[in-house]
Amino acid sequence: MIKVGIVGGAGYAGVELLRILARHPAVRLTAITSRDEVGLKVSDLFPSLRGRVELNFVAPEDDSFKSCDVVFFATPNGIAMNQAAGLLAAGARVIDLAADFRIRDVAEWEKWYGMTHAAPELVAEAVYGLPEVNREQIRTARVLANPGCYPTAVQLGFLPLLEAGVIECGHLIADAKSGVSGAGRRADVANLYTEATDSFKAYAVGGHRHLPEIRQGLSRMMGGAEIGLTFVPHLTPMIRGIHATLYARLTRDIDGKALQDLFESRFSGEAFVDVLPAGNHPETRSVRASNMCRIAVHRPQGGDTVVVLSVIDNLVKGAAGQAVQNMNIMFGQEETLGLDMLPVSP
Amino acid sequence: MIKVGIVGGAGYAGVELLRILARHPAVRLTAITSRDEVGLKVSDLFPSLRGRVELNFVAPEDDSFKSCDVVFFATPNGIAMNQAAGLLAAGARVIDLAADFRIRDVAEWEKWYGMTHAAPELVAEAVYGLPEVNREQIRTARVLANPGCYPTAVQLGFLPLLEAGVIECGHLIADAKSGVSGAGRRADVANLYTEATDSFKAYAVGGHRHLPEIRQGLSRMMGGAEIGLTFVPHLTPMIRGIHATLYARLTRDIDGKALQDLFESRFSGEAFVDVLPAGNHPETRSVRASNMCRIAVHRPQGGDTVVVLSVIDNLVKGAAGQAVQNMNIMFGQEETLGLDMLPVSP
Amino acid sequence: MIKVGIVGGAGYAGVELLRILARHPAVRLTAITSRDEVGLKVSDLFPSLRGRVELNFVAPEDDSFKSCDVVFFATPNGIAMNQAAGLLAAGARVIDLAADFRIRDVAEWEKWYGMTHAAPELVAEAVYGLPEVNREQIRTARVLANPGCYPTAVQLGFLPLLEAGVIECGHLIADAKSGVSGAGRRADVANLYTEATDSFKAYAVGGHRHLPEIRQGLSRMMGGAEIGLTFVPHLTPMIRGIHATLYARLTRDIDGKALQDLFESRFSGEAFVDVLPAGNHPETRSVRASNMCRIAVHRPQGGDTVVVLSVIDNLVKGAAGQAVQNMNIMFGQEETLGLDMLPVSP
Amino acid sequence: MIKVGIVGGAGYAGVELLRILARHPAVRLTAITSRDEVGLKVSDLFPSLRGRVELNFVAPEDDSFKSCDVVFFATPNGIAMNQAAGLLAAGARVIDLAADFRIRDVAEWEKWYGMTHAAPELVAEAVYGLPEVNREQIRTARVLANPGCYPTAVQLGFLPLLEAGVIECGHLIADAKSGVSGAGRRADVANLYTEATDSFKAYAVGGHRHLPEIRQGLSRMMGGAEIGLTFVPHLTPMIRGIHATLYARLTRDIDGKALQDLFESRFSGEAFVDVLPAGNHPETRSVRASNMCRIAVHRPQGGDTVVVLSVIDNLVKGAAGQAVQNMNIMFGQEETLGLDMLPVSP
Repeated sequence: MIKVGIVGGAGYAGVELLRILARHPAVRLTAITSRDEVGLKVSDLFPSLRGRVELNFVAPEDDSFKSCDVVFFATPNGIAMNQAAGLLAAGARVIDLAADFRIRDVAEWEKWYGMTHAAPELVAEAVYGLPEVNREQIRTARVLANPGCYPTAVQLGFLPLLEAGVIECGHLIADAKSGVSGAGRRADVANLYTEATDSFKAYAVGGHRHLPEIRQGLSRMMGGAEIGLTFVPHLTPMIRGIHATLYARLTRDIDGKALQDLFESRFSGEAFVDVLPAGNHPETRSVRASNMCRIAVHRPQGGDTVVVLSVIDNLVKGAAGQAVQNMNIMFGQEETLGLDMLPVSP
Repeated sequence: MIKVGIVGGAGYAGVELLRILARHPAVRLTAITSRDEVGLKVSDLFPSLRGRVELNFVAPEDDSFKSCDVVFFATPNGIAMNQAAGLLAAGARVIDLAADFRIRDVAEWEKWYGMTHAAPELVAEAVYGLPEVNREQIRTARVLANPGCYPTAVQLGFLPLLEAGVIECGHLIADAKSGVSGAGRRADVANLYTEATDSFKAYAVGGHRHLPEIRQGLSRMMGGAEIGLTFVPHLTPMIRGIHATLYARLTRDIDGKALQDLFESRFSGEAFVDVLPAGNHPETRSVRASNMCRIAVHRPQGGDTVVVLSVIDNLVKGAAGQAVQNMNIMFGQEETLGLDMLPVSP
Repeated sequence: MIKVGIVGGAGYAGVELLRILARHPAVRLTAITSRDEVGLKVSDLFPSLRGRVELNFVAPEDDSFKSCDVVFFATPNGIAMNQAAGLLAAGARVIDLAADFRIRDVAEWEKWYGMTHAAPELVAEAVYGLPEVNREQIRTARVLANPGCYPTAVQLGFLPLLEAGVIECGHLIADAKSGVSGAGRRADVANLYTEATDSFKAYAVGGHRHLPEIRQGLSRMMGGAEIGLTFVPHLTPMIRGIHATLYARLTRDIDGKALQDLFESRFSGEAFVDVLPAGNHPETRSVRASNMCRIAVHRPQGGDTVVVLSVIDNLVKGAAGQAVQNMNIMFGQEETLGLDMLPVSP
Repeated sequence: MIKVGIVGGAGYAGVELLRILARHPAVRLTAITSRDEVGLKVSDLFPSLRGRVELNFVAPEDDSFKSCDVVFFATPNGIAMNQAAGLLAAGARVIDLAADFRIRDVAEWEKWYGMTHAAPELVAEAVYGLPEVNREQIRTARVLANPGCYPTAVQLGFLPLLEAGVIECGHLIADAKSGVSGAGRRADVANLYTEATDSFKAYAVGGHRHLPEIRQGLSRMMGGAEIGLTFVPHLTPMIRGIHATLYARLTRDIDGKALQDLFESRFSGEAFVDVLPAGNHPETRSVRASNMCRIAVHRPQGGDTVVVLSVIDNLVKGAAGQAVQNMNIMFGQEETLGLDMLPVSP
């Protein structure tokens, strides 16, 4: 059994880890923290877990973490970088669901995240956990940087096109829409029901922190080539889900059938990426509460602009589910273990 | 392996059965019908099932049903009563998620459902499948009448009070609120997103078909005593969930602690009924997509009116989940088998 | 022109007052406060008001209030009671949308609101502003206590029955459902979109502050007789709207037609109360963003329990709209002036 | 008083026309049809109109239309083209909210709409009713083609950039998101609450009927130059609102300040277009139930891609409100008459 600790268990990524791990046949939940809730029974905070999770919240310094095989950080940015070294020294591996280890260029990270990095040496060591791109390196990772939600949906959508070299990469556009759970479980007027429902808006058009992460990921797919990307995130009134609509200009004439084949063959064998038949449009609810990414590729009106539609559940494939998928790989388990839940629809 | 057939697989109860049964370790999905979709791949209609359910819809007459051990009817009322005898003759058992076998008084059934009953002899044989009341009879049932969604939430909430004989049963009130999936997957202007969202209404105050079913169930708990019940259903803008708020007058002074004990001891050992600590209020999302019923009991201001709050997911404990729970009991399986999914929250 | 000030203009009742008053032909908006937003342009906080409201937020001490004819308090409880006397002295009249002047029994108020009342003498003077009950006293009020949202819906629903003396008043039940805007525009995890949407719950079953207000109002209708009331509020995932479902036992046999007549004749001539034809069920959206209350009365199954359905928009008839209706009465204007907006549906 | 008839009053554009016109001081509602509802009181179908609209639905052949000064068609496509000539002959002017008269190239129209045009001569005469572009021609129009919802939001957003000639017009992108009311009030499984809520999807990526309308409008702004446009509509779970996110490549270096000035000066004096200050992001709810269009322009990361955000209420500025704005212009009224309702927020 893999002994698992969770730091930051009172947020949405934390409770989603619990929902998944409580049923995971190879995991023993060992310790969970929440700064604000020490001593509280986890299921008192989250009644959905009553009868299924018996832990109480402890402090991050609690001894129980020392015996963990792996510790998930479902914390705000800037926490994991301070605690990872200690856990590694105690023999645990670290999976960070926040952004501390995602950007290899530390100066770039510090610019976007507005703090000094506490563990740049671990950034160098860390493995970026997008299994469909990086599976081999993930197996042996000690520090795993779990991708962001938008970056997961956008990278998987562009992946076949970039690897095949069929699109201009200087002017990519990612128009992405997220459910409100992406904003986390924090008291904030802007995310009140009354403010967020029955409305739609873009935000952070000037620059969102996921921009450098996506740009870095897309660039790697091109062997380090420079990527031009306009990334516009939007907030849509739903709990879970990201829908990325991606636009690129084709550099050569490739017909719809060949585009479809490109996607199907690239993701053939991937358990968590499903390429829809030509002409389809994935709905976010078709992946709700599951670890699936569903993708469709279109070439409207036969023009030279290709449109990719890519949907995930931001809390699963975009956070907790992908983290468990990475854990499975790191610990030599079946990649799908504990991740067999079907999407909830309706 | 239990060979399972589903009649009426294109509605919400049907797709929820598929979500549950596709992961059930003791089940082999064998046949599924939809009058309108014969030949279509099930997962073409419900993309959430892609990669998990490989069946195509067949006609109800299809031979594949003959080899089934059990057939679920997730159909409109009036279908199962015509097909059950044939299936029984072929050796299958029948679980009807519709209302055909719920009301023992056939004349009463015919009055509320507006049709002549095609199989009154099976009504006499049928077992009402509320396991928390009827578990022993369910084990050997050939024809199982799966309870309605409102009746499940309301009966479980009143159960400890009626069995203990502490409330007046001539003037019970059940003020119940349902998510929109209760109306089914039928094209209907009243259930359009634009009509049902951001609004709240009562309906069928004059008389709802679940009234006689609830009345019959409550009466049985009292050994057949007459029950007076005002039942007011409401439509609330959410997908899944029923919240029943129940009111009754106490016939003797029973303090809050004793009321709480009454509920806890009655449901002790029940895997799918969770009595919340005193003072709590269950939210429907705490059971979303799971087979749980959560209940709280209150005695406001120390008066003689007791208030019970009872929540279920109408598609799971109120339909497909309870049907699978019944199947497990009927086939000697662990009652919770395949029903271990945690609620999805947020 | 009536010179109007608003204290507490950054909440939902405040912005709704602005939406209404910006179009009111007899009003000049003169001053508006928000403790946290002094100096900010109102329309920078509420872009929906751009081009329509040109004021900036000022401090409550601002001189501009001295010249006001009337000051609305759209503040938390406990603010108006401290500022009202000063404004009265300066010649303004006061309309309090909070609870400071609603309960005549000061000790009772202090128990429910957990503070010492700062102006008990004004409580004695204050007029409770439910025009359908109290219109004459409202005309000359200096201090007007605008009713709460639940109390408005519940009192209007019970009014004809109590006045006619046809129901038992010892065991009334009000099962009420509110949209989330009733919780105000405050950062609070419980009211985040992700927490409040796609879910339904009761709250404060043990005792809600509107209980004594409703009880007092119902008692007055009975000439001071004691009222027994069980009041259970619920939160439903919609922005605006209250749906009160009211239950009472008839004390004499009164047929459906007579019940209907009772309601129609009681509210005949009321501009803002609409009695639906027999058999109807009002939806909250049928009054959305308007000052209407719509009511239907039922006697299910011909039994002795009467059921009343009463819907309002909690921010309009339940707050800002009713406050403007009261202002119109107090200043000798047509009661409907500035309140002619039709419900927004869909 | 302008005598107004409405053909097709049982859909969402129809009921929205009624909401607006019932308060319009220069209008007398004279006749309204609905094929399916002849004889029914309008307010029986739409309780939100009780007490405000006293008409009954009549047949389209009803004599009352003959006396109308203007007839609005809030019908499916293909109705107005058959009835317009008769009404013109009787002296009425026609405002078509459907698409019959929007596309000047009749062959193109027939290709996209799949029917033969019944009145090509009226297409030639018809005026496209986007007042911010076409105000002068609208004054004298006998047949007015009211723009589609997407086309309104997209054209107003691109307008300043195209007129100024600062963007490449061969590869424009319009990523547009619509509330569900855009699909109309028709029974359709895909638009059930349970199907459309808590989910997000693109649709018609291969080609949407608004594509040729937008392309024609943008081309006119460029004096007829060819336009390359990728238009991807999406469905978002809200009742009303369109959010268009527009992307174009700048053809010359124009800084953020100059871009902002370009938009502000172009729309200066327009009552219904509001350019937000630099850096803002309009929310659809800031225009809910009003005739406003709010626009913001961004140049992310100082790159050569300009991003425009344009929001409208699809039923008001995208349908009924713009139709009334056009009627005001056509009949020499103040353009804002009857359109002074403030957005409803929250």
